[in-house]
Amino acid sequence: MPSEFTLSHRVEFAETDMAGIVHFANFYRMMENTEHAFFRSIGLSVHGGGVGWPRVAAACEFFKPLRFEEIVQIQLLVAEVRNRSIRYVFRFWKDETDGRVEIARGNVTTVCAAVKGGTLAAVAIPDSIRALIQAAPPEMLA
Amino acid sequence: MPSEFTLSHRVEFAETDMAGIVHFANFYRMMENTEHAFFRSIGLSVHGGGVGWPRVAAACEFFKPLRFEEIVQIQLLVAEVRNRSIRYVFRFWKDETDGRVEIARGNVTTVCAAVKGGTLAAVAIPDSIRALIQAAPPEMLA
Amino acid sequence: MPSEFTLSHRVEFAETDMAGIVHFANFYRMMENTEHAFFRSIGLSVHGGGVGWPRVAAACEFFKPLRFEEIVQIQLLVAEVRNRSIRYVFRFWKDETDGRVEIARGNVTTVCAAVKGGTLAAVAIPDSIRALIQAAPPEMLA
Amino acid sequence: MPSEFTLSHRVEFAETDMAGIVHFANFYRMMENTEHAFFRSIGLSVHGGGVGWPRVAAACEFFKPLRFEEIVQIQLLVAEVRNRSIRYVFRFWKDETDGRVEIARGNVTTVCAAVKGGTLAAVAIPDSIRALIQAAPPEMLA
Repeated sequence: MPSEFTLSHRVEFAETDMAGIVHFANFYRMMENTEHAFFRSIGLSVHGGGVGWPRVAAACEFFKPLRFEEIVQIQLLVAEVRNRSIRYVFRFWKDETDGRVEIARGNVTTVCAAVKGGTLAAVAIPDSIRALIQAAPPEMLA
Repeated sequence: MPSEFTLSHRVEFAETDMAGIVHFANFYRMMENTEHAFFRSIGLSVHGGGVGWPRVAAACEFFKPLRFEEIVQIQLLVAEVRNRSIRYVFRFWKDETDGRVEIARGNVTTVCAAVKGGTLAAVAIPDSIRALIQAAPPEMLA
Repeated sequence: MPSEFTLSHRVEFAETDMAGIVHFANFYRMMENTEHAFFRSIGLSVHGGGVGWPRVAAACEFFKPLRFEEIVQIQLLVAEVRNRSIRYVFRFWKDETDGRVEIARGNVTTVCAAVKGGTLAAVAIPDSIRALIQAAPPEMLA
Repeated sequence: MPSEFTLSHRVEFAETDMAGIVHFANFYRMMENTEHAFFRSIGLSVHGGGVGWPRVAAACEFFKPLRFEEIVQIQLLVAEVRNRSIRYVFRFWKDETDGRVEIARGNVTTVCAAVKGGTLAAVAIPDSIRALIQAAPPEMLA
């Protein structure tokens, strides 16, 4: 049962803004892309299986700029698996001449939802999904 | 029956790229936003009424750069109304010290489509919609 | 000295995703657009004047979905003006049949920065800018 | 001297819209990403070396929808190398049960530009770059 996953991404031109760095809103897309790649890595898709995963909250702190064509490693950590929601922590890393540095850190809380009577309602995470995910140990999240 | 419509838009920071100008892919979004505002101006929504409007082709030529906080006028012209498709021409204008200049020109061909047997298929444009739209005279398109 | 500002925005088609609602990353762009419109409302631009405003942190909670063509009011509140940074709170509202509802709430912390010796460094907010902004009373932020 | 390059891309959630398919504006970003990966494949970056590559024109035709998590192959073909500009053709492919199908086809014309007296002006493509690129044979473009 994995509790961790890392996606590698090379920064695209359209992700930058006139300040010459990756626009901050794109960090939230990178977190989501990593979450979805994590789901695929355990044989699931975030889309399908009768449930969806709307976002409840998302936050990010920005430590260092990220530039065009740089490679960023987006590390997903399963911070908490609750009855109907999952909270992920994301740590963004890039290699500099003096070693790997953390350039941003974020988190996303997502709720398991199913269509009930025409609207989307939170439901318990199916056991089949829960069985595939395990919370990361606290030291990884620190 | 209108054949022309203009949407005004102030350039957003996230629309720029590291070259300091609006990223070219955003011109296609601006064309679509203008098309949708045109539909609202004649009492319609591109979404609903049983039909949708998938894109068949879109093109744009870029004459001058567009920058953060500049105001661009996106002029829609109904170039052609066919049985199942509409072709729009879009002219992008901004004010400079020596007058209004055209900074880009594009076009979008969109087809009227309805869900038939589970898939989307092209259908004749409903008369109720056709009655609200008229092709622009050639001199406006030149 | 204003401590509050509201930007109105009609949801664009490209802001939606396959779940039929506004993709959550676009809420961060909406917060930024409101911040920039606030700056313009007090006679400033976030770009220019020798300083820039990189983001230090941004967060958002999502209460209700936002859909294509809906109008959202994005209310900016100046939560805190520190020596070198400003923290804004953003409340997203839309009108429903039974009144105005808050659909999301976020915050952005941005630091005043100037180019010093080739790199961007945090500096004290110029008095001329500080004089134009006032922190909102706590009850507005609650 | 290569005249062809293919980039593989898995569709991201944020690239879709409420119609359940990739929003058409994202095809232009995919063309650009492929162009940039092509440049890297021949040891260059589109950013740097004293020249930039602003877009002069871009067009795309859409044949079939592209969906979340599908893998698309974006094939770049060097259609024409002129004195100061390059025109690329892009063919988008995906695998279906009965074989590979072309889902879209586009082209981008980009001009070699350098900063001259404060503004960007078209210049002859440096021989060092020209020597690394060769136009594709006509049959590949058909």
